[in-house]
This record gives sequence, structure tokens and C-alpha cells, in this order.
Amino acid sequence: MPDEFGLIAELFAPLSRGYDGAHSLRDDAAFIKQQPGKLLTVTTDTIVEGVHFLGGTAPGLVARKLVRVNLSDLAAKGAQPFAVMVNAAFPKDIGWDWLRGFAAGLKQDFDCFGLWLIGGDTVSIPGPLCLGLTAFGWCDPAHSPHRSGAGEGDDIWVTGTIGDGGAGLLAAQNKLPGGTAAESAFLKDRYDLPQPRVDFGVAMAPYVSASMDVSDGLVQDLGHICTASGLGAQVDVGGIPMSSAFTNAGFTPVQAIAMGDDYELLFTASPANAAVLRDCARTCNVDITRIGRMMQGSGVLCLDPKGRDVTPVSAGWRHFKEKGQRQ
Amino acid sequence: MPDEFGLIAELFAPLSRGYDGAHSLRDDAAFIKQQPGKLLTVTTDTIVEGVHFLGGTAPGLVARKLVRVNLSDLAAKGAQPFAVMVNAAFPKDIGWDWLRGFAAGLKQDFDCFGLWLIGGDTVSIPGPLCLGLTAFGWCDPAHSPHRSGAGEGDDIWVTGTIGDGGAGLLAAQNKLPGGTAAESAFLKDRYDLPQPRVDFGVAMAPYVSASMDVSDGLVQDLGHICTASGLGAQVDVGGIPMSSAFTNAGFTPVQAIAMGDDYELLFTASPANAAVLRDCARTCNVDITRIGRMMQGSGVLCLDPKGRDVTPVSAGWRHFKEKGQRQ
Repeated sequence: MPDEFGLIAELFAPLSRGYDGAHSLRDDAAFIKQQPGKLLTVTTDTIVEGVHFLGGTAPGLVARKLVRVNLSDLAAKGAQPFAVMVNAAFPKDIGWDWLRGFAAGLKQDFDCFGLWLIGGDTVSIPGPLCLGLTAFGWCDPAHSPHRSGAGEGDDIWVTGTIGDGGAGLLAAQNKLPGGTAAESAFLKDRYDLPQPRVDFGVAMAPYVSASMDVSDGLVQDLGHICTASGLGAQVDVGGIPMSSAFTNAGFTPVQAIAMGDDYELLFTASPANAAVLRDCARTCNVDITRIGRMMQGSGVLCLDPKGRDVTPVSAGWRHFKEKGQRQ
Repeated sequence: MPDEFGLIAELFAPLSRGYDGAHSLRDDAAFIKQQPGKLLTVTTDTIVEGVHFLGGTAPGLVARKLVRVNLSDLAAKGAQPFAVMVNAAFPKDIGWDWLRGFAAGLKQDFDCFGLWLIGGDTVSIPGPLCLGLTAFGWCDPAHSPHRSGAGEGDDIWVTGTIGDGGAGLLAAQNKLPGGTAAESAFLKDRYDLPQPRVDFGVAMAPYVSASMDVSDGLVQDLGHICTASGLGAQVDVGGIPMSSAFTNAGFTPVQAIAMGDDYELLFTASPANAAVLRDCARTCNVDITRIGRMMQGSGVLCLDPKGRDVTPVSAGWRHFKEKGQRQ
């Protein structure tokens, strides 16, 4: 059974090496020095076993998902991440093997994204794993897109493909309606390991009017941009980008836009910026797709290629609604 | 059953009012503008139902303990708190009444300590309440005491009285060996509602060599200062400050220094600074007591008034040790 302090010294302190303000995780707090000309951007997300990831998921994947769902939020604000704090509530019977796998997953993504662990807290919980992460990034204060900046007539864009994460959860539960084993594995990987669009988020920031990440379902999340911007949105569901694995499994675009766990970027921009955004995307090796337009009014209207209203009734994932919970 | 977004809009967004970078909690991230001449100090702590607070504790008290255990860490670094983020994992059956009480408790302490809520995350958990809080403060970079700065011959000091929090947990469980009902209530209050020494923490910072807050038991926590500073410590247990409620309940100083949940400040300072520290304490209306001295060597040696070694074998609270867990 691991000791809390041994755990921190052996597994977590090495992840802080190189960041002076972390004091090797041996102090009560971390210290963040200002970076000239930048604005500190902070986000936090919690993931819970049985809600955000399935029990039995490999610990390295759990760690990397924890990192990535947060980096996705920073990417949406055009912020370059540099540090994280982890709040880990571990069941008492977790064991060193699991914890070593978890720390190895953190290290893998810290190396990948250039992050330091600067603090955190490790406690026991008489219940499921509950993991919080707070991520710190630097953005250019002049180019930090909020949800509220969308303008009438702006294009609505998304990165990557939509629906894979939600379908991947079904794949993990052997509930996919169709598709091959390889396609199922592809979708499950998309659920387990989101791809935060960090480079593109930073690159696009000067050219977009509003931005957020899609985590609770595209329609629901676009609704937040609408509300914050005082506008409505029209989405052409025929144009929703989907993976072949997703469509071969038997899903439709209307299902795609009501699923969660995409962790793609959803952003709006003047049509005049379409070309430069496509250039940014090419440079960052990310696909982007125009899926609709901001309009006067409120709410999200989804139209099929024949112009019929196909707006999903259940628009996405909510933690506390009474019915239709994901699991 | 509350809806996640309604919950945030009704209960939490009002707590962000006045802090521009919080964007009324309607964005993916918060933005923290640098304060000239100050250093950003960040700490995070998690509290779990059944581990850090008892099931059935009033929601306002849970909220305030969550705030205070974090402010205690900032106080130890001489940092003036200004903002927090809350990661809340609520059981699905939590209900609006509990949540309203929780938000009211946050508001009460936010008003008391001058804090804004600048972000967070609200999720469901198939298990006990699990609440994380990340607190942000500004310290003077020239006067930010770490654990590692203690010098040989420095005095060791604590604020307040030691042992009350640990005894208060026993009071809440009707396990006190003695004392009156009023004394039991006093101790329980000390467990439920720590008093972070914010003003004194800021005031003392220029005059101390090392500092931390006592949360896991005085001897264990002093051991961290010893390790970080490469020194040993000698504690005169006859001088440990204790409340009359604590001693009347039947506890001894040796028990006091091995209990947890004190949330008092433990700091070291040159004997030359004793007078100015006493002045700071008087100004801040906080009692401070000299309890020992830093020495060459390692580890904590506790001596009774006759000079006998009474160092506790179990020095304090650990989340993952095999035996002697608090509950």
C-alpha cells in the first residue's frame, strides 16, 4: 500500500523538475512568475470513474485523458499550456502498479505537450476514482477568443470529426450497432484519448470571433456560444465532418451532433478569414470544416440537406438531468 | 434534480461577479491579470465526505471548510487570497437544498476573506462528495516563506492551539473521553471550521525563515520543515499551546502534536525576530507560542519538561498508510 509522501516523492516530484515555482512539490503552494506580454489562462476539469471513463481503463489512458480534456479548454482560448496541478482522490486499494501507470501516462503527455506538474493533492476516497486537473496556459491578451464574440453572419467551424468519442464509449461497452473490429478500436481510442488541438488553437486565435471546445455535444455547446453572443446558429447537418468508422458503425449526422466527448474546437469567424484559417489548419495538420452560420435570433437550428429541421431533442450530455444519462 | 447549467447560473455565477477574468463562469477558462510587484501563489486541496468531513455535515460548513483549508496553505506562504476555482463531484441525489446551502457557505466565506469564484467544474459521482478547491493569492516575492528556509537555532512557533481539530472529530463521533457539552461543541466547531491565519500569514512573512500550515499533525508537519531545511527540531511538549476544552477532555500534549486538522501556522524564525513576531500577532489578534528550536541533525525530537523523549510513534495523519487510519 503506497504512502502518500512516498507516492509524491517517487512518482510525482520528478514531473515537476525544471519548474522552480513548484519547489519539487514539497511546499504548500506553487508560484507562477508572470510571462511578459502574456495573460495567464486557467481551466479545470474533473473526471470520475464510471462517468467520464470506464472502470478498468488502463491507468496511463486515464491520466492522459485527464490532461487532454483540460488542454482542450485552453486550446479553445488560444492558450499555450505550461503547467498543471492534479487533485487525485484514490481508493485505498489502488496499489502501486496502478499509480505507476498513472504517473507514466502523465509523463508521456507532459513530454508531448511541454508541461510541468506544479502542485496538487493526493487523498483517499471511499468510492470511485475522482481526478481533477487544473491547467495553466499563456495566451496573447489581444487574441483570446471567448464564447461571447460571435457576430451575425460569422461562419461556424469545427476541427476534426464529430461523434467519434460518443461512439467510442458505446464501442467500449460493446454496444456499437455495426462496423468492423478495427473501426470499433478506432472509435474507442477516440473516446479514451482525445486530441486537444493545442497548436491550432494558438494559431487560429487572432482570426476567430468566438471559440470553445466541444465536450458535451456539438448542439448543446454551440447553444452556449449562441447564448453568450446573443445570436442564433444554423447548422447544416449534411456538412458535419464524420469519420468513416463512425458512419460505418451506422450512426447519422444528427446523432453525431448530440453525442459528447468530442474534444474538438468549435469556433466562429468572419467569412473573410476562411482562407487564413484553412492555412492555419494546414500548417497544424488539423482538418477544419465549416458547418453553419451565426444568425439573428437565439438557439441552434439544425437543417438537413433538404432544409428540414432535424434539431436533436436531447442536445447533449448533462450531469444532473433526470433522464437520458449516458450511463 | 438540479441541472448543471442552471446550478452554475443560479448559485455559482453570482460569486464571480466583479472579477472580469471569470466571464461570469460562462467560458472555458479564467484569465488572471498580473498584479505589479506581486507573485502569483496557487494551492489546491481536496476534501472527501467520510475522510475530511463526516457525512451529514451541514453543506455551508462543508463549503467553508473547503475554502479555509486552502486559505491556510496560502497564509503559510504569506499570500493574500483573491480567487478560487471549485471542482465539485456531487452525488446525483444531492438536491437543490444541499446545493443552496453549499453556495451560501461559499458566499459567506468569500465575503469574509475577499474572494471571487473564477471557475470550476461540476460533475456527478456514483460515490461520496468529493470537493476540490484551487486558491489563488498574491505574495511579495521577497517575502514568501518556504519550508526549506529554517536555520540552525531558529525558534519554532505555532499559532493558536494545537489538537482541537483532531479532538473535534472525536467530539463529532461522541468519542471524547471527558469534558462538558460546551467544550465538546467548541472542539467540534474547531474541526468543522478551521480559522486560516490569513492576516497574520501576510504580516509575519518578512520575519520568518520557514513556514507551513499544520494539517496532518504537528510532529509530522514539522518533520517536513526539517527534511526540507536539512535540520532537526527539538519540541518542548510542555509548551504546546492547548485549549482548556482540549485538556479538560482528557488529552495530553503528546496527543495534541500527533492529531490532524489543526490548520494553524507552523513557522521558524531567528530569535532576534521574536519581538516583532509577537507584535504582528497582537495586531492580527492571533496567539503565537514558541514551542522549540531547530537544531543540527534530522527529525523531530519531543521532550517533556523533565527532558524525557516523548516523541509520538504515530506522528500524524496519512491517507494511505496501512494502520491507524482516522476512520
